[in-house]
Amino acid sequence: MSKLEASASITPEELALATRNHGMPLEALTYDVTPVGLHYLLIHYDIPVVDPTSWRLTIGGSVRRELELSLDDLRARRSVRQPVTMECAGNGRGRLSPRPVSQPWLNEAVGTAEWTGTPLRPLLEEAGIRQGAVEVLFSGLDRGVEGGVEQQYERSLPVDEALQDEVMLAYAIGDEPLPPQHGFPLRLVVPGWYGMTNVKWLERVTLLDQPFEGYQNTWSYNFRQTPEDAGERVTRMEPRALMVPPGIPIFATRERHAELARHRVSGRAWSGRGTIERVEVSDDGGATWQDSQLGEQASRWSWRAWDWEWTPSGPGDYELCCRATDSAGNTQPLEASWNLHGFANNQVQRVAVTVTGGGEA
Amino acid sequence: MSKLEASASITPEELALATRNHGMPLEALTYDVTPVGLHYLLIHYDIPVVDPTSWRLTIGGSVRRELELSLDDLRARRSVRQPVTMECAGNGRGRLSPRPVSQPWLNEAVGTAEWTGTPLRPLLEEAGIRQGAVEVLFSGLDRGVEGGVEQQYERSLPVDEALQDEVMLAYAIGDEPLPPQHGFPLRLVVPGWYGMTNVKWLERVTLLDQPFEGYQNTWSYNFRQTPEDAGERVTRMEPRALMVPPGIPIFATRERHAELARHRVSGRAWSGRGTIERVEVSDDGGATWQDSQLGEQASRWSWRAWDWEWTPSGPGDYELCCRATDSAGNTQPLEASWNLHGFANNQVQRVAVTVTGGGEA
Repeated sequence: MSKLEASASITPEELALATRNHGMPLEALTYDVTPVGLHYLLIHYDIPVVDPTSWRLTIGGSVRRELELSLDDLRARRSVRQPVTMECAGNGRGRLSPRPVSQPWLNEAVGTAEWTGTPLRPLLEEAGIRQGAVEVLFSGLDRGVEGGVEQQYERSLPVDEALQDEVMLAYAIGDEPLPPQHGFPLRLVVPGWYGMTNVKWLERVTLLDQPFEGYQNTWSYNFRQTPEDAGERVTRMEPRALMVPPGIPIFATRERHAELARHRVSGRAWSGRGTIERVEVSDDGGATWQDSQLGEQASRWSWRAWDWEWTPSGPGDYELCCRATDSAGNTQPLEASWNLHGFANNQVQRVAVTVTGGGEA
Repeated sequence: MSKLEASASITPEELALATRNHGMPLEALTYDVTPVGLHYLLIHYDIPVVDPTSWRLTIGGSVRRELELSLDDLRARRSVRQPVTMECAGNGRGRLSPRPVSQPWLNEAVGTAEWTGTPLRPLLEEAGIRQGAVEVLFSGLDRGVEGGVEQQYERSLPVDEALQDEVMLAYAIGDEPLPPQHGFPLRLVVPGWYGMTNVKWLERVTLLDQPFEGYQNTWSYNFRQTPEDAGERVTRMEPRALMVPPGIPIFATRERHAELARHRVSGRAWSGRGTIERVEVSDDGGATWQDSQLGEQASRWSWRAWDWEWTPSGPGDYELCCRATDSAGNTQPLEASWNLHGFANNQVQRVAVTVTGGGEA
């Protein structure tokens, strides 16, 4: 087991992605709501610069009347605010072997923001969904080339998913306008689903009578074993628990050193498939487990706190692990389940800790 | 010349750093002041969680009277606000060959924040610097292991540098308290110097009668060719110009595609050694150069805007470069000057752009 949980030799292409995009440093699991700038970021193309005065959102396609809304129009509507934990579908990719070449996340592509905006359903009802509409397409202003196709980033949801109460169009984080990197002036937020669902820099919502066949829906975010597989869609977040690594880090390797003493090990856990019912912890690499103490969660869609009093039995090397189980009975695996693009690898986190002090030489 | 400007095979250790720390996506060069969350971040150890009510800053050592200041005390003092461009000393490290193993930056470890705080000099004058004091030591609350030494992050400045008008203790970015990752509740800001100088999570300022011999002063941030060299200290930022890459990116490689049309190529340039006097641009990999148009800068210590109207001569592959010259006569080199830790590599940025359209097949 590599202490660093990554297979070797990252390519220059992966590095070019890793220096732009970033995870949440795991000590930020301390915060109920992730401070702006620490939330993970995965940006497919470039961050668009949008003039909010000329920007409009169009809701069209298979509707009875097309709507065109300014940012002020959206702010004048019913406002909701909810803390939502969001995770990149590629989180854990960098721990797969062989490693699919894309943004090489280890464990840290997650964050919780308090999104402020307006619910989507009343807008769709006002536009009037026509009989026969099956999907809602969300189109962003960001453009690039992916899979050989020049495209704007767009993804669809089945109509029944788009009509869920918790689905919203967010124009703020807390009381502040969205930062450019989170989708200014408007983004979709679909609690419980992986990050790619939450289209940023939203400019158009289109009701479709046929399923959307675009790249990000039918190719990019599918589980497949070979390029020939059609594959199942990536949808909701699998359960995952992460811990704040105890002790202090070695700069160059991020390995941990801790005193021989009692440590409060804490973290967060979440699932898009149910509520978190249990978080187990281990200090021997997963050979034995015990239950942590579950804490609060700020909303149905935000992560749940947990903590554990850990007293190492003596000086030496430990491997701490944590493992979440949700109300639907899903549990994190010890080993990764490989797929071609490296999605949803929720194998348990492993933190190597060297304990010193006490009676050691 | 690699299109991606990086030498091959990043190690798992470098990846563990690259997923935590992050650069500024280069399209954010558009902003005079970098939006929070897009400014580069290099965090040696863990981000401390500091309770601002119990936190105090001590100014002591070789002074006539030791000061202990709360955050309210500091906020009650004379307030200054200045946009300052800050760059990591390791920016460009990932482009060296062989590549020193540390945070593997390409070009993007930079940002400009509008720091709000109080000037340092009046505080030092109030404490009363005693005869014989030669350096001012700044100690942060962040702890870790580096070079085999357990330490808190601390760096010193010669007294005359610490007394410069522009040196400040910052408690806010604009009107908002410092985010945790930028040093909450207080950090040092030394305009013109590389990022390592700007100690975050500041808890103590100590006047020293002898030069500080700590790891971050005498070992970590020195230019050396071999581990045996003493090496010169890394101090002020070398000149650098960066451009917003034109066109649209390929997701997986960050290479650019652009239409055969006129493009406005823009960017920013800065130097800690003088004002920016010239930014030259090239579309043939540096074989020929022309002058860009220089724009404004928000303060003496912030980057200067530049732009250039680029009309590709036809479809094909181009390599765009930019090169800054400062008022002290320093110019960016075409090739890197190697050193053991990979500091201050300000070789010119190279952006590969494939132009299509117009008369092509």
